[in-house]
Amino acid sequence: MSYDHFFADAVDALRRERRYRTFAEIERNAERFPRATWHSPGGPREIVVWCSNDYLGMGSHPAVVEAMRETALLRGAGAGGTRNISGNSHEIVMLERELADLHGKEAGLVFTSGYVSNATGISTIVRLIPECVVISDELNHNSMIEGVRQGGRQKAIFRHNDLGHLEELLQAAGDRPKLIVFESVYSMDGDIAPMAEICDLAERYGAMTYLDEVHAVGMYGPRGGGVAERDGVMHRIDVIEGTLGKAFGVVGGYITGKQVVMDAVRSYAPGFIFTTALPPAIAAAATASIRHLKLSGQERDGQRRQVAKVKAALAAAGLPQMETPTHIVPVMVGDAKACKAASDVLLAEHNIYIQPINYPTVPRGTERLRITPTPFHDDKLIAHLAGALNDVWTRLDLPRVRATGGERRVLAAGAAPLAMPVGGG
Amino acid sequence: MSYDHFFADAVDALRRERRYRTFAEIERNAERFPRATWHSPGGPREIVVWCSNDYLGMGSHPAVVEAMRETALLRGAGAGGTRNISGNSHEIVMLERELADLHGKEAGLVFTSGYVSNATGISTIVRLIPECVVISDELNHNSMIEGVRQGGRQKAIFRHNDLGHLEELLQAAGDRPKLIVFESVYSMDGDIAPMAEICDLAERYGAMTYLDEVHAVGMYGPRGGGVAERDGVMHRIDVIEGTLGKAFGVVGGYITGKQVVMDAVRSYAPGFIFTTALPPAIAAAATASIRHLKLSGQERDGQRRQVAKVKAALAAAGLPQMETPTHIVPVMVGDAKACKAASDVLLAEHNIYIQPINYPTVPRGTERLRITPTPFHDDKLIAHLAGALNDVWTRLDLPRVRATGGERRVLAAGAAPLAMPVGGG
Repeated sequence: MSYDHFFADAVDALRRERRYRTFAEIERNAERFPRATWHSPGGPREIVVWCSNDYLGMGSHPAVVEAMRETALLRGAGAGGTRNISGNSHEIVMLERELADLHGKEAGLVFTSGYVSNATGISTIVRLIPECVVISDELNHNSMIEGVRQGGRQKAIFRHNDLGHLEELLQAAGDRPKLIVFESVYSMDGDIAPMAEICDLAERYGAMTYLDEVHAVGMYGPRGGGVAERDGVMHRIDVIEGTLGKAFGVVGGYITGKQVVMDAVRSYAPGFIFTTALPPAIAAAATASIRHLKLSGQERDGQRRQVAKVKAALAAAGLPQMETPTHIVPVMVGDAKACKAASDVLLAEHNIYIQPINYPTVPRGTERLRITPTPFHDDKLIAHLAGALNDVWTRLDLPRVRATGGERRVLAAGAAPLAMPVGGG
Repeated sequence: MSYDHFFADAVDALRRERRYRTFAEIERNAERFPRATWHSPGGPREIVVWCSNDYLGMGSHPAVVEAMRETALLRGAGAGGTRNISGNSHEIVMLERELADLHGKEAGLVFTSGYVSNATGISTIVRLIPECVVISDELNHNSMIEGVRQGGRQKAIFRHNDLGHLEELLQAAGDRPKLIVFESVYSMDGDIAPMAEICDLAERYGAMTYLDEVHAVGMYGPRGGGVAERDGVMHRIDVIEGTLGKAFGVVGGYITGKQVVMDAVRSYAPGFIFTTALPPAIAAAATASIRHLKLSGQERDGQRRQVAKVKAALAAAGLPQMETPTHIVPVMVGDAKACKAASDVLLAEHNIYIQPINYPTVPRGTERLRITPTPFHDDKLIAHLAGALNDVWTRLDLPRVRATGGERRVLAAGAAPLAMPVGGG
């Protein structure tokens, strides 16, 4: 029996639906961030990356790079084992203390990725709470959906950021234990949860809360503790999850919370127990990054400033951006083929790299270019971006902002019908 | 409602069953591997690590460390995105080519960990094969069990390495597609699957094969391709999975196989799609390690030599090791409390670190110290180990080898009853 056709058919289906993905092969240039070398079909070329989740350029920060290099020299490349079997490095213990402090919690727990922290963190927590009902935002990231699914508990999905619907579901769950699972910044629409109100509801109905801050840590709050820090509700959230791979510029994920919760997850989560620990060099680099961003507001200020300039430049050019209160700037295309074409022309002719975001990462009909300006995207780069997008929009005849009574109306977040949202990837 | 008691109860249950784990906090010393600094309650002390999965000491190899340091300097600390969104570094593409070549396959696919490669790799493969029956060895690692479970297909478990039972299950599956899932070297008992015979059965019954070589890559076969390479059956296995975090000394996991299979997994696996890529520096370090071990047999020879010496020294001391044909040397204790005590005394009084392996990593009644000699555990260290173990066995009155008619009889692998085996952690 040959099995090839099963796999070939699956790949063909993606091609037919124009969902087949090709990955641009790039070499980041740490000294010239956000520039990189693209291994194009015609040979290597310098491009500007406009779609990185290294949101603050911390991956290139000298303190971060040096911590990684120094620790690799002293401790070697890897951890050498699971946390339990010789892989519990001093560096990862220090990192967990740093994370607990960042979020004002008793303890932290590091995982190999943000994906794993959600998948094994959520599933383990709900398995430890008999009869728990999981109440989850419909736009939660795939890793959270996976955590809820693997937990095997009854679940209820509330409409995105809809407090009324959330309250209905909390009421319906009655006296049973309840876990509310949600994000602060949603990665693809760049909108923010009504966090204080969700905490109010959680307290009123006696629910535990699990908050994903992966697109917020490092960037919001006076010490980079995330939107919960900024909004003064950090102490009201039971478990805060985050990543070391986006604004902190390294790799890995974590949860923070009470000592007893962390200890239980540490002791029961298969995706924590049965896996090699992150290398000491990675842990040290992440710690350096977090420490820097706790004290320095420069990167956050620079990001806010350049994001505002990008939004203004796109608005001036009549490009249809989705309005967001965050650093995420989605420019709407609304068609998979056109979105891919726009990205291809930007890269091939303007040396601008913005990966097309198509279904299933976003719902069909809401295909987009997702732009993430960092403090290092200077004014010249922004002018170049706006000009290039304008050119592509004209050449491909893509939809512009509709003028309404002399006002430009931009597409509002959540305006499109939703289907199978699964988060950034 | 307070939720703390759910977590406190779960932790208390572990304490009552003597399964609560404390992690020894250590700092590896790359220049003096396998030595490390233990952050003991009484202050820092130098110890010798005898339980690392950095099986060949490659985590400290200058070529590996230097590749990591150099790439961190040039490319920064992290990848900056998922593989699809700006995280597809040149270094990770090169690593995948290296891995495909290592296993004689068309393509490779890198994941954030070996755990994730099994969990999302197996589950994605079987989801792409309608009506697939998964036939899985009962001692497979937790990550493989998780992959089978998440795949949601009908499963059948065969008794460990039992070809007769495997054949029964293949027959019972009839004309349906079948995936045989197994390991080469089983981590806790250190035994090896009858690989050629499993391939014979797979071919006879038209089954696809998925082989986990995490405890073999780098160490077996003339180029470190694993037991399948050593036994000349690499080309008969459809998917070979491995890790970058054990003998290769870094972190991460992968699968290799036909281009069409890798392409389908790449396109459909949530745990691959929705996660930040491994940093270029990690990919470069892993590539350096694989390349070195493809050409150099010195580390493999050194490991075999020192492993044989350890086994001989323990036998001479009458210590009850489980007989293995591999680099894994389990010394049986058979009781959770005694196993923990032995480990504690070794560390506190002999500066030897061997983590106790208790349930659920191994079945109850088979608690053990799992020793993994590397080429860097020299004769002096081996003599010290044997003396220390002998002392601990005497002081704690632990079971020795039973003499039978003048012969020493060691405990055979698989002799003990099995319950809920879940692999190393």
